[in-house]
Amino acid sequence: MKTTDRHYEREFVRTFFTSPAAVKGEDDSAKMTRKAAQLSGMQAPDVWVPDNEDATAPSMRDEGVQNIIDVVSEYGADFPGEIHPRIVWHRESPETRYKGFQQMKEIADPENGAVENLDGFVVPEVGDIDDWKKADEFITIIENEHGLEEGSLSMSVIVESGESELAMGDLREEMGKPSNNLQRLFLLVDGEVDYTKDMRAMTPTGELPPWPELRHNTSRGASAAGLIAVDGPYDNIRDVEGYRERMEDNRAKGMIGIWSLTPGQVEVANEAPLPPQEGSWLLEVDDREVELETEDGREVYEGDTVTLEEEDGEYVLEIEGDAQVLSEDELREELLDMTSYVPSMDDIVNSMEEFEAAKEAGKGAIAMTQSATLVIDGVEVDIEKDRMWDEATYQAAMTPIALFQDVYEHRPDQHDELEELYSEDVVERAVEVGSV
Amino acid sequence: MKTTDRHYEREFVRTFFTSPAAVKGEDDSAKMTRKAAQLSGMQAPDVWVPDNEDATAPSMRDEGVQNIIDVVSEYGADFPGEIHPRIVWHRESPETRYKGFQQMKEIADPENGAVENLDGFVVPEVGDIDDWKKADEFITIIENEHGLEEGSLSMSVIVESGESELAMGDLREEMGKPSNNLQRLFLLVDGEVDYTKDMRAMTPTGELPPWPELRHNTSRGASAAGLIAVDGPYDNIRDVEGYRERMEDNRAKGMIGIWSLTPGQVEVANEAPLPPQEGSWLLEVDDREVELETEDGREVYEGDTVTLEEEDGEYVLEIEGDAQVLSEDELREELLDMTSYVPSMDDIVNSMEEFEAAKEAGKGAIAMTQSATLVIDGVEVDIEKDRMWDEATYQAAMTPIALFQDVYEHRPDQHDELEELYSEDVVERAVEVGSV
Amino acid sequence: MKTTDRHYEREFVRTFFTSPAAVKGEDDSAKMTRKAAQLSGMQAPDVWVPDNEDATAPSMRDEGVQNIIDVVSEYGADFPGEIHPRIVWHRESPETRYKGFQQMKEIADPENGAVENLDGFVVPEVGDIDDWKKADEFITIIENEHGLEEGSLSMSVIVESGESELAMGDLREEMGKPSNNLQRLFLLVDGEVDYTKDMRAMTPTGELPPWPELRHNTSRGASAAGLIAVDGPYDNIRDVEGYRERMEDNRAKGMIGIWSLTPGQVEVANEAPLPPQEGSWLLEVDDREVELETEDGREVYEGDTVTLEEEDGEYVLEIEGDAQVLSEDELREELLDMTSYVPSMDDIVNSMEEFEAAKEAGKGAIAMTQSATLVIDGVEVDIEKDRMWDEATYQAAMTPIALFQDVYEHRPDQHDELEELYSEDVVERAVEVGSV
Repeated sequence: MKTTDRHYEREFVRTFFTSPAAVKGEDDSAKMTRKAAQLSGMQAPDVWVPDNEDATAPSMRDEGVQNIIDVVSEYGADFPGEIHPRIVWHRESPETRYKGFQQMKEIADPENGAVENLDGFVVPEVGDIDDWKKADEFITIIENEHGLEEGSLSMSVIVESGESELAMGDLREEMGKPSNNLQRLFLLVDGEVDYTKDMRAMTPTGELPPWPELRHNTSRGASAAGLIAVDGPYDNIRDVEGYRERMEDNRAKGMIGIWSLTPGQVEVANEAPLPPQEGSWLLEVDDREVELETEDGREVYEGDTVTLEEEDGEYVLEIEGDAQVLSEDELREELLDMTSYVPSMDDIVNSMEEFEAAKEAGKGAIAMTQSATLVIDGVEVDIEKDRMWDEATYQAAMTPIALFQDVYEHRPDQHDELEELYSEDVVERAVEVGSV
Repeated sequence: MKTTDRHYEREFVRTFFTSPAAVKGEDDSAKMTRKAAQLSGMQAPDVWVPDNEDATAPSMRDEGVQNIIDVVSEYGADFPGEIHPRIVWHRESPETRYKGFQQMKEIADPENGAVENLDGFVVPEVGDIDDWKKADEFITIIENEHGLEEGSLSMSVIVESGESELAMGDLREEMGKPSNNLQRLFLLVDGEVDYTKDMRAMTPTGELPPWPELRHNTSRGASAAGLIAVDGPYDNIRDVEGYRERMEDNRAKGMIGIWSLTPGQVEVANEAPLPPQEGSWLLEVDDREVELETEDGREVYEGDTVTLEEEDGEYVLEIEGDAQVLSEDELREELLDMTSYVPSMDDIVNSMEEFEAAKEAGKGAIAMTQSATLVIDGVEVDIEKDRMWDEATYQAAMTPIALFQDVYEHRPDQHDELEELYSEDVVERAVEVGSV
Repeated sequence: MKTTDRHYEREFVRTFFTSPAAVKGEDDSAKMTRKAAQLSGMQAPDVWVPDNEDATAPSMRDEGVQNIIDVVSEYGADFPGEIHPRIVWHRESPETRYKGFQQMKEIADPENGAVENLDGFVVPEVGDIDDWKKADEFITIIENEHGLEEGSLSMSVIVESGESELAMGDLREEMGKPSNNLQRLFLLVDGEVDYTKDMRAMTPTGELPPWPELRHNTSRGASAAGLIAVDGPYDNIRDVEGYRERMEDNRAKGMIGIWSLTPGQVEVANEAPLPPQEGSWLLEVDDREVELETEDGREVYEGDTVTLEEEDGEYVLEIEGDAQVLSEDELREELLDMTSYVPSMDDIVNSMEEFEAAKEAGKGAIAMTQSATLVIDGVEVDIEKDRMWDEATYQAAMTPIALFQDVYEHRPDQHDELEELYSEDVVERAVEVGSV
């Protein structure tokens, strides 16, 4: 059997949305929880996390437990995503760990009526693997005490310390052991704010460091143990563009999920990992990418960072004032290096079908060609990008499609919005492809 | 008990300054050691390393041992930082390891009078964790032979091989074991020059590769085991700006300390991690950051890489020649993404106090808003940056303050220079804050 | 003995060239294998991999085994590089693993005459370390069955999953154990296409993510276990410039070898890691590097991204429209930060000899100075770059020379092309240096 089987239905989690379990000074301290519980469609997260830790003041956390019970009992059955409350925990405080145990025990008590709508718990501030086992053991005891099936409550952790980052390298080995139920693990969530504190890192602006290595190690740990990786909160809420860029960077690491702090962020993050409706050509200048304008089948560059002149077969390509004289072949090579194509959902499906046909015909690998006519300062250049596709390329291209199919299966509440986004028949084809 | 308690007084090390233990061809081979031993104030390092390894020719190393003994005995008591001589060691040479043992035994011999001013030893070229244990065991034997308290001599290592990089992942586990005294560990220092050789890496210019993953793993290893991470030498001594950029990059990884090769580098590196006296707004264009000029409360951009025009409510924002037409909201979003604020020590303290008040009032999280009026080509745009602060954000903001407080406590010889830098009352407030 | 001794003759592998073992629909399905087997000189790889996995359709793989046997028997003896066929394997499929065992057993059968020209096998899709041991054990059994010396067949793996990336951290420990023959390990090869699929990573363009952490971990694993690291395929075959940039980035990580998909790529990749014939000065603007033109001993910048004006001792340096007024010292510091020098093979050898002399004279460290006269907009500025050289710097500089010497020793078929590239006497000096 593959040890990397996933021990849960859902293959992907795009959004991890926290809302305070109890807010002080409101006549109804559960207001935000209640609002979150009634979200649906693109504004509803794949995983909703009533947060009884950092987002709720210590003095309010008993009330927070009660709010979670009330709201999850009342609205949980109709909530389109999964529900995983975050309780308190700390690798360095037995007192906090025991509080966390009590909170979980109370929330999961069948007599309180919330547990049947509950998918699991989120445990923050975990330390090394032995600390993870303490939380796992508490949940096992709770399942036993409450007569729940062992392993029925999943456990997700927030990785916000050096030792828990290291622990992710041991998961695959530890999860097999008969002495624990770590198979209940679901999400590995980065908590960059606390992690930054724990690592004693600083930036001039106080912005969080990018932590690329942490995100890689989280994604790798999830991949090796059959779990799902989720990035931490993006706290500059108004900076939608920055949020999108972060998610694009995460996806390049295999980290498809991200924390959301508002329904607005949820909506953006639910859509971001899905392939675009329209394809487009990009011209890369330094690290910026400029989208080219399509005009009657030609891709036109309209900026003036890059200039191009032709004179009897010779070309002068100037990038930010640095000019090079090139032959047509050299120019083409240069431009090949500078351009890239962003395929639409349609394009992806087409390429997959083309390769399936080639495979039928006994070909192990074929070259896919993307061609375009670039126009820079009126000078036209035809380029052709070749890419070798073999079985592996095909499988890799399947990822966004698998994501889409997973979303389509588990989120019927989003069907209308998806069909609006892509048109009905594109959705239909995308649901079908790859099932060969 | 928290296993990540630090087993030493000082919480931070900004500077790791090496000076050759013995220089051939000088009438006084100890001249440089003697000069280093008499540094004080911002030119004096937090950790001084008389270097009897790479910086001292093999033929001079017996003399080096004697020089270290003489100089540390004479000047050590008054030296404001800690003193950790580097001896010889190599994971692949028993001969070198035995020489290292002899050097440490001689230097630490109470009869030679240096040991009372000695804080520990620096062991270079360590290999996997078993090799670290060999050095640890030698120090234990030396402590026992010389009637010193077990664990009283700390041990710092230079990480300059793939196996020692991997070993940092095991430290936390190994340090607990009764069969070693690895709790004596103090600094994890990267040695990129030898590391580059060991990894057989090459760059066209012969400059060292940036090794971001090594620095991350060192910082993480230090964090998980309660140690202090220090980056290796920056050997282009005249390139002060490059040195500063490297340190800023290190701090974003939680690596606050760095090697210094000259008193000049020490001075720069002692100051670099401390918050600035004045705040400033930055405009990010590609990867360069341009500091904006403050003119009567507005932040003015004076370059011409970015241009901005307004025409009846529509804006044309041009970045390096690539123009976009934006609505006011789109423009604001774009600029939010491009700007950032560097808070002064004052600003940091204020924000912390604001959050402490909110916490008192039972709020678990509040939004901190930074607003400014940007001026580009005469066009004024008001922007507001929101950042959610919760307990964790507060704790993370504490890091530079904690660093300052640690420096203030352990380096009285720098008080005057710090008060000159910040003014007396800012220093006072910074020493007080967060002690709630 | 050093556990990082390499258990094979060759110290470096520049090129890993795969060719399909059997192509359907050709009258001679072995045509491509036969062509590859007859390559020589710069077009011949250091390691040739007849590929009976992804590049060969499943239905053709029995024929593939036969083709490998025939071609390696006929041409193998004269092939200038090593020969390592890739067979099928998968960490999650016993069926595939058993097929792989049968393929290796057949190919290595002495009665088929190929084994004497065979250096080892390439095992793809390995999982955690226990899975590596399964492949190792199969090879041990095959060696025993066929009366071959135990360990005589080397094993190379393709790292294309999170668990195999993690396994590379355990190699050093596992290779020593009496219960396996993992000492037969030779190459650690990244397979980014399958790895990307396994990590479920996505990019907008479908290009592979850069995976810097994977490449670092592979290089580190190779360094710690005495193996050789090789990067995966670069599938945009026409993009030669991009291929070169990737290799430069790899070398900065200690990953000197790379996969090649065509003889053209082999030729480029065999030359890329060798030092250039001519030195050159670079001006770095943002992330782009502009090569300066040497005109009568001065280094002239001809772009207009950077402009420089002098007025009575003050300088105005403008970078992409952002101007700063600088004193001569500030200007020099700024330019030091922006310039770098790419030494030729000659330069490298000279510096090494200079340091050898200094060492003789008992100096442990000396400053190497590179000076040049820069010309920007007619303004001349003399700069001097200092770099401290100690034993470690010297050793690091030895890497490209050691590579060259290794190539010269093991690839006599490339001597002519190397002498054409460098001139005879440069080759002679490079072969001699460092043997002190």
